Amino acid sequence: RINGDRLWDSLMEMAKIGPGVAGGNNRQTLTDADKEGRSLFKTWCEDAGLTLGIDRMGTMFATRAGTDPDALPVYIGSHLDTQPTGGKYDGVLGVLGGLEVVRTMNDLGIRTRHPIVVTNWTNEEGARFAPAMLASGVFAGVHTLDYAYGRKDPDGKTFGDELKRIGWIGDEEVGARKMHAYFEYHIEQGPILEAENKQIGVVTHCQGLWWLEFTLTGKEAHTGSTPMNMRVNAGLAMSRILEMVQEVAMSEQPGAVGGVGQVFFSPNSRNVLPGKVTFTVDIRTPSQEKLDRMRAKIEAEAAKICEKLGVGCSVEAVGHFDPVTFDPTLVGRVRNAAEKLGYSHRDIISGAGHDACWAAKVAPATMIMCPCVGGLSHNEAEDISKEWAAAGADVLFHAVLETAGI
Amino acid sequence: RINGDRLWDSLMEMAKIGPGVAGGNNRQTLTDADKEGRSLFKTWCEDAGLTLGIDRMGTMFATRAGTDPDALPVYIGSHLDTQPTGGKYDGVLGVLGGLEVVRTMNDLGIRTRHPIVVTNWTNEEGARFAPAMLASGVFAGVHTLDYAYGRKDPDGKTFGDELKRIGWIGDEEVGARKMHAYFEYHIEQGPILEAENKQIGVVTHCQGLWWLEFTLTGKEAHTGSTPMNMRVNAGLAMSRILEMVQEVAMSEQPGAVGGVGQVFFSPNSRNVLPGKVTFTVDIRTPSQEKLDRMRAKIEAEAAKICEKLGVGCSVEAVGHFDPVTFDPTLVGRVRNAAEKLGYSHRDIISGAGHDACWAAKVAPATMIMCPCVGGLSHNEAEDISKEWAAAGADVLFHAVLETAGI
Ligand SMILES: NC(=O)NCCC(=O)O
Ligand SMILES: NC(=O)NCCC(=O)O
Repeated sequence: RINGDRLWDSLMEMAKIGPGVAGGNNRQTLTDADKEGRSLFKTWCEDAGLTLGIDRMGTMFATRAGTDPDALPVYIGSHLDTQPTGGKYDGVLGVLGGLEVVRTMNDLGIRTRHPIVVTNWTNEEGARFAPAMLASGVFAGVHTLDYAYGRKDPDGKTFGDELKRIGWIGDEEVGARKMHAYFEYHIEQGPILEAENKQIGVVTHCQGLWWLEFTLTGKEAHTGSTPMNMRVNAGLAMSRILEMVQEVAMSEQPGAVGGVGQVFFSPNSRNVLPGKVTFTVDIRTPSQEKLDRMRAKIEAEAAKICEKLGVGCSVEAVGHFDPVTFDPTLVGRVRNAAEKLGYSHRDIISGAGHDACWAAKVAPATMIMCPCVGGLSHNEAEDISKEWAAAGADVLFHAVLETAGI
Repeated sequence: RINGDRLWDSLMEMAKIGPGVAGGNNRQTLTDADKEGRSLFKTWCEDAGLTLGIDRMGTMFATRAGTDPDALPVYIGSHLDTQPTGGKYDGVLGVLGGLEVVRTMNDLGIRTRHPIVVTNWTNEEGARFAPAMLASGVFAGVHTLDYAYGRKDPDGKTFGDELKRIGWIGDEEVGARKMHAYFEYHIEQGPILEAENKQIGVVTHCQGLWWLEFTLTGKEAHTGSTPMNMRVNAGLAMSRILEMVQEVAMSEQPGAVGGVGQVFFSPNSRNVLPGKVTFTVDIRTPSQEKLDRMRAKIEAEAAKICEKLGVGCSVEAVGHFDPVTFDPTLVGRVRNAAEKLGYSHRDIISGAGHDACWAAKVAPATMIMCPCVGGLSHNEAEDISKEWAAAGADVLFHAVLETAGI
C-alpha cells in the first residue's frame, strides 16, 4: 500500500503555491505560481532519484529507470496547473499520486521491468490558453507546436512567449517519447461516486467535447437615445443563444451537457449597447452522434437567432476531442486492483477532459477516479478526504505495478 | 454669428488627446488623457481671458466677467470625458461650443451684464465610475461628496484617489456657486433631427433613468462533469433577465428603452459555470409612471427567474434620475434664436442623460441639440458636420446673449 499521509502532506504543500481567494488555488499555467509549483515538483522528483526531461511544450517527464533497457516506460500523468479559482486536487492528485507510487516503490525496493515516468503536462486546464490539454494534444500529434505557441491569453500574451518567460521551455521534441501504457489518476469532478458511496471509479470512457467560440457583432450605440427598433443588439443575441444551448442540452438528456463559462462584452460600458460580444459554448456527451448533432444544431440555431436581430455571427472551434474508449486491458487491471484491495468501485465515464484522452491516441491508456465532495470541481471549495486520495493511489500503484512488471 | 471654423479646429485639436482605436476617443474620466484634455482646455480659457475655478469634484469653471457685480452668472456646460470607445463630439461640443461663445463675444467686444461661466463637469459619462453625471449630481445636492469619492472603477480604484492622482482636485466647495441660468449644447445622440432634416433640437424634456446593477450568485462548477440537473447556472439566469428586460421595454412602446451594456462573468473561464454574474440594466422613459412600473416589473420578474434556477439575486440602483422638464422661458429663447437665425428646428426630448438634468434642480436650465449621423453615439464612428456644429453654437450664442443681457 502507498503512504496516504505522505501523499496528503505533498498535496497540502503544493496547495500553498498560488493560493486562491477562498481556500483553493490560482496557479494558472505559465504564471509565476506555475513556475514555483514546477520547481517544487522538480525538487521532489530529484529527491526520489528520478531523472527529469522537459519537452518544448514545457511538459515535465520524471523517469524512474527500469531493469530492461529495451522496455518502453509506463507513464503516470496529470497536471499541476489550475483554474483561476480552482481546487487543490484537480490534476495535482494525479501528478503527486504518480510521485507517491514511485516513492512507495523506493520504500519497498521494488524494481520494475519497464521504467516509470511521472508526467506534469503543461496547460491542461485551458483556462488561460484554449484549448485544454494543449501539451498532451501536441504530444499526440493533434496540434502543431506552432499552433500551441501562438495561442493567446485574454491579455494577448502568447503561450510561446510565456513558456519562455517562466524558463520552462525544454529541448525534447514533443511526442518523440513512446509509451508502453499511460495511467491518469484524477478526482471525479462529478457527483456519482460520492452519491453511490464508491471509493474507486474505473474509467471506461471519456465524453467528447466542442468549445465553440462565438463572436457576435452588433452596433455600438447609446443605451438611452437609441430607439428599440434601431438597435443591433449583440447582447440580446448572446442571451438567446445561451437559452438555446440549454434547450439543446436538455433535449439530449440523459448523457449530454451544454453551457457557457466565459463571456466578454465590448466596450462593456453601462450605457453602451455592445458592439461585440464573444463567448464560448461548451458541449459534451459520450456519444459521437449526439456530439455532432448538438454542434450542428447549435450553430444553425445561433445563425437564425443572429439573423433575426441583424447581428453578425462567426464561430470558431477552439477546443475539441471525440469521445474516447480507454484500453480494455488496462481498464481490467484497474478494476482488478480495486477488487483485490477491497475497495468498492464502479465503471464510470469521465465528464471532464483529461490528458489521458490525447495519450489514448498514441498508447494504451486509462484512468482511475476517486470521489469528490458534492461533485464540485473548478471551484475553490473542491474537496476530497485523505482516505479517498489514498485508495485511488493504491489502485494506481497496483495497476501500474502489474503493467510495468517485476 | 460664431466662428464655425474656429470651433471645428478646437474640436479636432481636443480629439487628438486620448485617441481611440477606430477614429474616436478614449478619454475616460480621471485618466492621464483626461488630465491632458483639461490642461489644453485651461490654456484655451486663459487665452480667452477667462478666470478658472475648480471645485472639489474637479469640475472646471471658466468665468468671463460681467458688467453688473451683483448679477449671477449664466453657465454653459458639458463634459470633456468620453466613453472607452467614444466619439469626438459627445460632451466636447458643449464645452468648446461654450468657449466659442465667449471667443465670439471677445471678437465682437460684447460685454454682458451677467458673467458667463464655461463649465467642464467631471465624470459625465459614468463609464469608469457609475453613476453618470456624478459631479453635477454632487453640485445639485443629489449625491454627497463622500459618496462620489468612494465610487470605484472596475479595477477597484476610487474616484477620490484618481482625482487626487491626476492633480485636478480643487478647493471650491461643490455646489456653492449660484446660477442665473444653465445652458447645455450637445449632439442629439439619436436619429430624429437627421431623419427630419432639422438643424436644431429645442430640448423640452429629458427622459428619466434607472441603472439596476444585478449580482447573481450561482455555483461555480465544471462545465463538463456537472450534470444539467445539478447546475445553479447564474449565466442562464442572466440570459433570461436580458430577454425579459427586452420584453418589458417592448411592452412600453413607444417612448421607452431598456438594455444591458455591461456584463461580468466570474471566474470567466470556458470550463467553469460562473459562480457570479454581474450586469447593469439601463431603462429610460420620459414618463415617471412608466419608469417606476418598468423598474418594479423588472425586479419582480428577475427575482422569479432566479428563484426558479436556485440562483441568488441582489439588485443595487447605481444610477437614477427622474424625467426632467426644462425651463419654459429658456426653452422659448432657444426656439426664438433658431427661428430668428433661420435654422430649421423642432422640439425634442433628450434620450440621454446630461449634466443639465442635475443643473435643472438648482437653476433654470435647458439644452440645444444638433443632429448626428445615423443617430450614432457612444461609438467611435459618431459623426457630425462642421455646419451642424456651427448652427447649434450660433443658437447657443444668441440664447445666452439674451439671457446674460447687454
Ligand atoms: N479535468 C479538467 O478539468 N480538465 C479541464 C478540461 C476540461 O474542461 O475538461
Ligand atoms: N450624454 C450622455 O451620453 N451621457 C451619459 C449618461 C447617459 O448614459 O445618458
